Amino acid sequence: MGWERTLDYYGSLIEKRLKSYFSDLIQRAESYHSFVGVVYENFCEYSLRKGKRLASCSTLLSYKGYTSDIKEDILNVCVGIELYRHCILVHDDLVDKDNFRRGEKSFHKIFSKFYDRRFGEGVAVFGGDLIFGLALKSILTSGFPIGKIEKVVNLLVEGYCEVNESQILDLLFEYKDPDINDWSAMVHKRATSLFKASILTGAILGGAPEHDINLLMEVATNIGYSFDIQDDIIDTFATKDQYGRKPGRDIILGKKPLHIIVMRQNANKDELNLLNYVEQKGYITKAQLESIKDSIRRTGALKVAKEKSKKHGEIAKKLIAQTHMNNEIKDFFSSFVQYIEDSLEWYQ
Amino acid sequence: MGWERTLDYYGSLIEKRLKSYFSDLIQRAESYHSFVGVVYENFCEYSLRKGKRLASCSTLLSYKGYTSDIKEDILNVCVGIELYRHCILVHDDLVDKDNFRRGEKSFHKIFSKFYDRRFGEGVAVFGGDLIFGLALKSILTSGFPIGKIEKVVNLLVEGYCEVNESQILDLLFEYKDPDINDWSAMVHKRATSLFKASILTGAILGGAPEHDINLLMEVATNIGYSFDIQDDIIDTFATKDQYGRKPGRDIILGKKPLHIIVMRQNANKDELNLLNYVEQKGYITKAQLESIKDSIRRTGALKVAKEKSKKHGEIAKKLIAQTHMNNEIKDFFSSFVQYIEDSLEWYQ
Repeated sequence: MGWERTLDYYGSLIEKRLKSYFSDLIQRAESYHSFVGVVYENFCEYSLRKGKRLASCSTLLSYKGYTSDIKEDILNVCVGIELYRHCILVHDDLVDKDNFRRGEKSFHKIFSKFYDRRFGEGVAVFGGDLIFGLALKSILTSGFPIGKIEKVVNLLVEGYCEVNESQILDLLFEYKDPDINDWSAMVHKRATSLFKASILTGAILGGAPEHDINLLMEVATNIGYSFDIQDDIIDTFATKDQYGRKPGRDIILGKKPLHIIVMRQNANKDELNLLNYVEQKGYITKAQLESIKDSIRRTGALKVAKEKSKKHGEIAKKLIAQTHMNNEIKDFFSSFVQYIEDSLEWYQ
Repeated sequence: MGWERTLDYYGSLIEKRLKSYFSDLIQRAESYHSFVGVVYENFCEYSLRKGKRLASCSTLLSYKGYTSDIKEDILNVCVGIELYRHCILVHDDLVDKDNFRRGEKSFHKIFSKFYDRRFGEGVAVFGGDLIFGLALKSILTSGFPIGKIEKVVNLLVEGYCEVNESQILDLLFEYKDPDINDWSAMVHKRATSLFKASILTGAILGGAPEHDINLLMEVATNIGYSFDIQDDIIDTFATKDQYGRKPGRDIILGKKPLHIIVMRQNANKDELNLLNYVEQKGYITKAQLESIKDSIRRTGALKVAKEKSKKHGEIAKKLIAQTHMNNEIKDFFSSFVQYIEDSLEWYQ
């Protein structure tokens, strides 16, 4: 099975479990207060939107790398990982003032419609908090022995701290131009932290040997870098047909992905002026986007970013081969990394 | 020792531990990225502002109710409880758009000064998340055996879910008038949840028997109701000299404490109009406040609220006497409850 079909198959198992989880949650909430039920109903819709379920599938698959079958307990943990992933997105959308997530309204936007913007933003602040709590509860009550649970809770809490530190830096860099060291500090705790949390959770629960845990930590970090850089390139270079949303969002928001940092270092005055102008306007025309893409190519920034993504992908593949996961799972992770590398070529 | 001197004494122990915790945290953060250090420095200042340290002292004292001495491990947990308390306040101030906390700038307001309002609010969103993570980490690494840690983490995570559900309702009730059942649902998970988390954490770690844990759960719930109602009365009825800030904040914000709900039910048209007018204006004059206080008295709402606070205080005291905590600690909790009851008489 190719990596995409693998994600489809295991993703649908997780979605089924997620639906039954939400159905219980909504029912219990409604007996407390109907509006809390409404909050959970909307969060259910938000988190069940079409997507790859990459994080929770990584947990399920790294678990399956060390065990043969999948029982209720690991699916409970996957629910926790999905909740974890989405509580981060709720606050991310809120701070980015993003109105959409996967083509539908973002969480704060859903609730702004109830009364006003402040109400929507308030529900998103408390709702995101709440969902992180629910994520931990899913892990705590998943049914695994206490020693393993403790390790996974430590991992998720550490990941949550890391991702929020990096979010603060990501926000700072909209206001204060970062250099490559700043960028590296930020990314090191951003995408890498979600891959670490999800892959290591599965491995720990699946009983991976200590040596493999250390290897997988490196695997996750390298996949994280490779994926994050590719994801940022997509945001600038993929067409709406390829990506599902209009390109150039990071540029408008003044975000500082690697290819923008490198471009800024080597750009001429006119190129910098255009970048700053677009950021100030909060809007980008097709012609402006094409011009900025030209500058990213001209300054060598696209090449630098692609090479860095590929380099981390290559390291990840070598390390995956050294683990004791079974071949099915090694193949999955390796071919996923290969896909990231290959897909870089789509964006010229 | 009276309850106030007890809080002063144990509060200063906790503050000392908290200062050394922050000093380590800031140092480590600065080696990651200087701005993360700045975030922690400001959070250190925010959480060390003058206050009673009621939550973490409740943990320390309920622990001491079952053990004789205080070691590093329980102080680490108290640090966690302080972080827990303050991460909730950071998001609470943010959603309430409160510019001040204990006479100084609120967390989002501190960071708004760096660049703009969106920056300040974003740092407060991610910063509050981060601090909850740090609270859990303090508990997880406190040094207690894993079985006890697991119980306490479960308790805090449950408390965090409860408090955030109640925060959503509290916000909703600014927009949609609640009845007494709505209010009860909200309060049941608000103040009660912090007392539950803090008192039970100490009792569990101190090795309280199961029967006492159940009793203390009821104690905490009743103290929570008694305290929450009194706290709300103070917000309307205490002078700035008594309370340290201008009265009437809840009224301006359209909050719905018990005395306002009961008043609304029995108020005449003019009284309701004044209440709505002040809420809409977001400002209250001295004369308007006096007039609303008159209505709260006239409609019997002040009496209803005071009696409910007292009733819960009386139940709490009876239950405290039934626990196996030592007499010093029983006296502390009982005299604190008695103080809440007595202080109700100051507000006429």
